[in-house]
Order: sequence, then C-alpha cells, then structure tokens
Amino acid sequence: MTAQLTKISTVAIVGGVHGNEFSGIYLERRYRAEPELVKRSSFSVTTLLANPQAHQANKRYLHSDLNRQFKTADLANPDLTNYEQSRAKVINAQLGPKGAAKTDFIIDLHNTTSNMGPCLILTQPGRLYNLLAAYVKMKMPSAVISRDEDHFAAEDHALLCTVGTYGVIVEVGPQPQSVLRQDVLEQMHEMTQHILDFIELYNTDQLPVLPKRVEAIRYLRSIKLPMNAAGERIGMVHKNVQDRDYQPIAPGAPIFTLFDGTEVPYDGSETVYPTFINEAAYYDNNLAMSLNEKVWIELE
Amino acid sequence: MTAQLTKISTVAIVGGVHGNEFSGIYLERRYRAEPELVKRSSFSVTTLLANPQAHQANKRYLHSDLNRQFKTADLANPDLTNYEQSRAKVINAQLGPKGAAKTDFIIDLHNTTSNMGPCLILTQPGRLYNLLAAYVKMKMPSAVISRDEDHFAAEDHALLCTVGTYGVIVEVGPQPQSVLRQDVLEQMHEMTQHILDFIELYNTDQLPVLPKRVEAIRYLRSIKLPMNAAGERIGMVHKNVQDRDYQPIAPGAPIFTLFDGTEVPYDGSETVYPTFINEAAYYDNNLAMSLNEKVWIELE
Repeated sequence: MTAQLTKISTVAIVGGVHGNEFSGIYLERRYRAEPELVKRSSFSVTTLLANPQAHQANKRYLHSDLNRQFKTADLANPDLTNYEQSRAKVINAQLGPKGAAKTDFIIDLHNTTSNMGPCLILTQPGRLYNLLAAYVKMKMPSAVISRDEDHFAAEDHALLCTVGTYGVIVEVGPQPQSVLRQDVLEQMHEMTQHILDFIELYNTDQLPVLPKRVEAIRYLRSIKLPMNAAGERIGMVHKNVQDRDYQPIAPGAPIFTLFDGTEVPYDGSETVYPTFINEAAYYDNNLAMSLNEKVWIELE
Repeated sequence: MTAQLTKISTVAIVGGVHGNEFSGIYLERRYRAEPELVKRSSFSVTTLLANPQAHQANKRYLHSDLNRQFKTADLANPDLTNYEQSRAKVINAQLGPKGAAKTDFIIDLHNTTSNMGPCLILTQPGRLYNLLAAYVKMKMPSAVISRDEDHFAAEDHALLCTVGTYGVIVEVGPQPQSVLRQDVLEQMHEMTQHILDFIELYNTDQLPVLPKRVEAIRYLRSIKLPMNAAGERIGMVHKNVQDRDYQPIAPGAPIFTLFDGTEVPYDGSETVYPTFINEAAYYDNNLAMSLNEKVWIELE
C-alpha cells in the first residue's frame, strides 16, 4: 500500500437534493435524530436537507434541478437567482466553497425509479475512490460501482457532491417518486454505513486487504426516447429492456417500441450496459436511459 | 339467461383524470388517433383527456383530486370553483349529467404505483357488472375484480365513472408516476378491449357461456401510516407487505416498520387482502393501503 493520503476530517451526508426522493430525506432525518448512527472516532459528520421547499411541495425541484447548479462559474454568477440556484450558493458557502472546501467528503443520497439496486456513483477519479469502490463492493456484493468521472473537470461538474474535496452519490432504486420503500431505505442505509466505515478505516490506516480489481460501469452517453419532428414522444422503452438496468444491450436488439407497435433496434456498434432506464425525472428532457461500458478499477 | 337489459349505445373512454398517470393518457391519445381500435358495430365511442392542465404540469391535479369531485351535490354547487371542480362540471355536462346521462358506459383509465397488475374496479352493483366481471376474468385470467360498490349510493360516489349510467375503472400497476411502461400499457389496452368486446357481445346477445361464479375482492376500509401526535409519519409499510397486493395479511402479521426498527402487527381480527399498498398519491392523506375481503360474484 502506498503512502497515506490526507486524512478525511469532515463528512457531510446530504438528503433531499430532489424533493420527491424520499429515502435520502428520511435517512438524513434519522441520522439527525440519532447522530450516534453516523458517529465515528476520526471525523465529524454533519447532515443537510438540501431542498426543503421542493420536499414541502413534494416535487423534484421548484424552479430548476438543484443537482445541476454546482458548476464553479454558476456558483459565482449573481444573475442565477431562482430558488435552486440560490440554494446552491448557500450550500456552497455551507459545505464548500468548491475548490477549497471545508467539507472533505460529501455523501449525497438519491433515489431512482429505475431498477438499479444500490449504486455507488463516483464523479471524480482518484486513488481514494478506487479504495472506496473496492471496500464497498467487498462488503456489499449487490452494490454496483458507476464511474462518471472523466468527462468533466471538477469545476465543470454540476453535481452537489463535487462541492466537497471528495464526494459520491448513493443512488438506490427502484422507488417511485414520493414513496418510501423499506427495502430501498435499508439498502441506502447499509451503503452509507459502509462508506462511513471505509473513511474511518482509511483515516486510521486499518483498511482490510482489498480485491486487486473491481468491476464497474463507466458512463458513455444518454439516449432519448423516440420523438417526431414536432418533439412529441412517439414511443417508449421496449419491455425487454424495462427493469433490466446493467444487463447488456447488443447492437440490433430491440430498445424502443413505437406507439404504432414498431420495434426500434439499438443502433450502436458495441454492446452497452444501461442505467436509469425509464427514470421518471428524465422525461423532462426525453431521456430514455444512460448507456455505459464495463470497466475494471485496478488497485495499485 | 334472463331478459336482456337496456342496450349500451354510447361509451366514453377517459384518460388522464390524474395528470401523471401516463398509461391512460397515452392510450386515450392512441384511441383518438386510431378510432378503429375502439370501433364496434353496436355502439359509438368517444374519448376524453379529462385533466389536460394537470398533465401539462405533470401532476396528479392542480387544486384538488378530480376523481373526488363527482358527488351529485358537488356538481350542483356553484361555490366549488377551482380547476378540477370546474372540470368536473364540464365533464358532467359533456358525458352526463349524472343520474340522466347521455353516456351509457364510462371506462376510466388509471395507474397505480402499487403492484396491482390489471384490476377492474366496479363501483356500482348490478347484473351487467357481474356479467362483465365474469367475461373479463375468463378472457384475462391475470385480471383482478375489485368491488367498491355498496358503500355509497351513486349520487354520493365521487368518482368520474359514476357520471355514466354504467362506469368502471381500469386500474393497472405498478407504474411510477410520470412514467410509461410498455407492459402496463399493454395490460390496460387488453383489458379495455375485453370490456368493449363484452359490450358488443352483450348488446348483440352473443355472450359466450360464462363461469357461474367469479372470485373478487371487496373494499372494507383504508388504513393509515403510523403517525405521532404531531401528525408526522413515524414508520412505513413493512417490507414483507410491500408489492404483495392481494396477498393475505393475517391478524398479528407485521404490517408496518417504524423508523426506529419496531415492527407493528396488523391489529384486525380477520384475514384481509390489501390493495394500493404504498401508493404514492395516497401519501397526501397518509394512507398506507386499502384492506379488502374475498367475495364471490354469483351469476344468476
């Protein structure tokens, strides 16, 4: 094992970035009420309900998606003044500022309506993340590691978790918007606990022997629902793809069904692995799913 | 078979009573675009998108639940003026008026986030409904027949489908709000087609031999999520109950889990059969599920 990196001293657990993703909202509330659940010896923990007004309204957001407001330039732009743009500035002051943050590690809790199970999303590269991925996968084999880290420099990443020096997303589904499922809540709690344990072991140089390589998926691109020239949706996710997040889609396999019954094949040239299949929140932008490749995370 | 009842001459297929239940909205749109799909020889069919502004806003409703606005007294009350109360009056004029309707049969298309599969809900009693239940169950064995018919006189029933001389609800799930699933859409289409076929066969006195009795469930009451004295939710549906709509819950079986981990047993004295388990739209009223008994529909 190589030399110890900087110790993690401050951790923030964030729920309710989206006001209708109930697991994170309830888990943040529980941790606030029972701080001993997140207490560890080597770091301090704060919790935050990020978008209380959207939760009050039982909506994802009031004016714009809070989890798209954290680009460095946007945080510095005084003309971005709507509710979520304002919340982003407040949260950046509270947990950041981005690039020189008082929070060493942010755990941002999210739900999806897609059948993704417990998914750990890494939005930045680095050795700490690789160790974390290996630890979480070892402790929770049902977890899927998702990398979305090398498309943007951190300052251009719009996600809340990029405000911290380190940050990850815990994404668990399937759970309809505005519903709380016990199984999903328990998976989110379990993954969060593993992350906290990892940080404690990392800080105290007590990490167990970890696997040398960890399977992960890496985000390639998103694809849209079939639309006509007027921008109206004319089809839907094919039922053979529905609920089969992470399962391979081969070139030529049916991926959409048009409302007239026509099957539309996947037109890519490589097998891909879908995530966020038919996610409710992505209909705004007519996104059907994300496509990923399989990769290996190699530990030094 | 006893003497023929009055023939059904006018049928209305209604989608989008709730603006974020996408299957009915898309199916109504498809039937409007391809009227040959719903055309039969013995009756005329109209279709209606009931709450276009709620669909535009991607919400269940703007001001109040449209499917609770159709009590005869409320329809006549000029002081009830919000958007859905106004829509109810317009729809009553268009398809009704309730009690003397120009529409003989209303098919109202709905989705639930609960794992209910294709469910035919009968909100009024009578021989026509019994024949319909037997026909649909024979043609579509996966269908569940739900009776909610003898709690209210028709004039006190607040549902849209009670505006017609006859009316039923086609309720299909699980489908998250604001999502379109192909499997759910196909089940809704299939059940609607069976209902139209039934009316045609009934009108032309060509009904096949039907089973003498049909299993159904009958609504008893709804139960609430666990709450504290301040009215805050302190627990959730137990994971052993989640997704198990129609499966028996015996006295003493766990039915809720409190956020502190305590399991809460079902405190009734009879085995019951749940529906609408953890339905997203019912959180407004803190409803956890509906409880039903098993009954038999006996054909004369």
